[in-house]
Amino acid sequence: MTAYEIIAKKRDGGELDSAEIAFMVNGFLAGDVADYQMSAFLMAVLFSGMSEAETEILTRLMLESGATLDLSAVEGVKVDKHSTGGVGDKLSLIVAPVAAAAGVRVPMISGRGLGHTGGTLDKLESIPGMRTDWGPEDVVRIVSDVGMAIVGQSPEVAPADRKMYALRDVTATIECVPLIVGSILSKKLAAGLDALVLDVKVGRGAFMKDHESARALAQRLIATAKSLGLPAVALLTDMESPLGLTVGNALEVAESVEVLKGSGPPDVRETSLALAARMIQLAGESADTEAALAVAERVLDDGSALEVFGRFVAAQGGDPRVVSDPGVLPAATLRETVAAASSGYVTAIDALEIGLTSLALGAGRTTVEDPVDPAVGIEIASPVGSEVSRGEPLAIVHANEGGDVDAAVVRTRAAFEIGGERPAARSRVLEALD
Amino acid sequence: MTAYEIIAKKRDGGELDSAEIAFMVNGFLAGDVADYQMSAFLMAVLFSGMSEAETEILTRLMLESGATLDLSAVEGVKVDKHSTGGVGDKLSLIVAPVAAAAGVRVPMISGRGLGHTGGTLDKLESIPGMRTDWGPEDVVRIVSDVGMAIVGQSPEVAPADRKMYALRDVTATIECVPLIVGSILSKKLAAGLDALVLDVKVGRGAFMKDHESARALAQRLIATAKSLGLPAVALLTDMESPLGLTVGNALEVAESVEVLKGSGPPDVRETSLALAARMIQLAGESADTEAALAVAERVLDDGSALEVFGRFVAAQGGDPRVVSDPGVLPAATLRETVAAASSGYVTAIDALEIGLTSLALGAGRTTVEDPVDPAVGIEIASPVGSEVSRGEPLAIVHANEGGDVDAAVVRTRAAFEIGGERPAARSRVLEALD
Repeated sequence: MTAYEIIAKKRDGGELDSAEIAFMVNGFLAGDVADYQMSAFLMAVLFSGMSEAETEILTRLMLESGATLDLSAVEGVKVDKHSTGGVGDKLSLIVAPVAAAAGVRVPMISGRGLGHTGGTLDKLESIPGMRTDWGPEDVVRIVSDVGMAIVGQSPEVAPADRKMYALRDVTATIECVPLIVGSILSKKLAAGLDALVLDVKVGRGAFMKDHESARALAQRLIATAKSLGLPAVALLTDMESPLGLTVGNALEVAESVEVLKGSGPPDVRETSLALAARMIQLAGESADTEAALAVAERVLDDGSALEVFGRFVAAQGGDPRVVSDPGVLPAATLRETVAAASSGYVTAIDALEIGLTSLALGAGRTTVEDPVDPAVGIEIASPVGSEVSRGEPLAIVHANEGGDVDAAVVRTRAAFEIGGERPAARSRVLEALD
Repeated sequence: MTAYEIIAKKRDGGELDSAEIAFMVNGFLAGDVADYQMSAFLMAVLFSGMSEAETEILTRLMLESGATLDLSAVEGVKVDKHSTGGVGDKLSLIVAPVAAAAGVRVPMISGRGLGHTGGTLDKLESIPGMRTDWGPEDVVRIVSDVGMAIVGQSPEVAPADRKMYALRDVTATIECVPLIVGSILSKKLAAGLDALVLDVKVGRGAFMKDHESARALAQRLIATAKSLGLPAVALLTDMESPLGLTVGNALEVAESVEVLKGSGPPDVRETSLALAARMIQLAGESADTEAALAVAERVLDDGSALEVFGRFVAAQGGDPRVVSDPGVLPAATLRETVAAASSGYVTAIDALEIGLTSLALGAGRTTVEDPVDPAVGIEIASPVGSEVSRGEPLAIVHANEGGDVDAAVVRTRAAFEIGGERPAARSRVLEALD
């Protein structure tokens, strides 16, 4: 068996067996398969695809390439939520405390922002003192005490995925269903969860630009997770426009606290409750989705979720005053209003453009080494469906010295589409799959 | 512009412009584009293809990456013949002297065998003393004196092709029309030819397994050559079964001499004359193909081509007695007959299997560093169409100490198909394209 033969077989549309996939994945990690062979293989997989059986093998090999996280000491049913990444996606900060307040144990393993998509860890670290680098014993303690924890991935988990992802990132082989599935699930499986809720984003600000490809990804994620013993469900949610009214780390934390207090943008509240309800249902805390949704609404509206969030922040070293005083969060020095150039209705806001503009202001990173400015970002004053008159604010750019505010204003204005008719209201939750 | 963006554009089926292709080709040669990015790009090209315009740009960039061979001092019209590679393909040894005897100047740049296909340089070097590493001044002198020369590629010609080919060879990206075209033509264009005849092989022993893909390659070769100022025509020729009755370096030289003497296998004679006629016609030595074919037959049958061959061997340092005494060629120590296991007609001989068996005996190389045994190979006793009785010889394996003769006998026998009906006779020349 040689790397050449395996690449050629996949190139020609063949189905690889377990020994062949192991030869590539383990060989690459060991340095026996050259990176130029792996990248050709990954591109062949992107074009030829992988069957469900191949995807399961790939995921299992990535999982087995590294350590697992022993959370068995946590009592109760452990459920995580994973998002495929979007713009303004602060849902973890709301979903986790809502689910935890309903009795679910939520040991959430999260990531950092890359490119136009934000990362939950970056958002949390805008809270003064907050740490996300806790080890397994700490995670067990915090989840047992508070009901939830949100921490970064241990470098010992799924090293094959890390090495393959780094290569995919520079060879245009990210956008490939079986590779995405292997990457997501190998890490989730390593955490020893009892169930997983997937938030698969669809639209301009997401990896998956159309409903069909997002559904294909969600179906493969669910099938592979189940075949590897992890019950999973997925919601397809809309990512055409940014989620909520804020994009940027501290801005999104403040907005999440608003939602946990029972106010905040309706789309964030609706999507958070829908995801939390699935976690509650999967954990067996409610008999059906409707009952689970009622529980989620109750623990959000009665302040229990906010209380969990405050204890979670304190447990991970953050300043718990963040739940009562957003003034503890870093704020940008410049605020520039983006005024509407014409009158009408906001019919669309390009999530990708808003994400890229926020990235350019310093809220995100282009490479994993880049520092992140917690304070900067974009606040949307007129979300989709608003009526605006020429000169009225569409958005506010939050910037610090060194950020190109003028460029951000121009780009933000261009991301708004203004038309003559009010667009039909639509739900963020497009479809549920299990 | 980044390598990532260019890979992604090609992956998504986009047409690259000249700056983008230059970024990849020149960047790779300069070390600015990593090999793992180039291999992902090459696999994307394999799947997405390249337009005629892109292929022309790629070919020109590969040509311009290195030196050109100045053969302007050679008087007369310079025409080369290039084969896409086959099993038992000794045609250059006959075509070049026939064309030269008819007045064409033939500065042939040839290659070495790799994998199951043989190489003209390896065949020539089985002649004692023969050298193929002559420089430009020597090529000018030899072609001017004798009418032909056959030498290896200068390492200064098309270095981008050399570096890309080495990567393609280990990443399963050889079988791709625009990449094959760029690789072949960049080197032919560097030789300053006036015209080129292409022998595109079709069938089990060739790169192109079916007529349709061989025609697509031939058409793209002709179109790209013409757009870069090099008149070209192509013959599609059959490579289902080995060409002639010998596979192996010295064996093929001896067979070529037989053909130059007016005997030898009819398929080798027919194909050689057809190719030489195209060279004669392109050089303007004959008005049409029929007249050119008559000229080719005449210079073959009157001994002029054999005389040119003898002078060519002598000019390049080889023992000219090879034209009268095959005993000067190295001979294998073991000859093992492969007997027919059943009676009937030979309906097919798998060229790929024969090529691989000859390779395993030492006649070819798996990597460019492997030494080649000039004496070993396979001699076919019963070509396609022969009637054989059980126990009669199908072939003779020529082996030296260390070669696995038993395995070669078994494999050679299995490469023969014996059936109840005599197969219809068919010409090796399947189609002419210009």
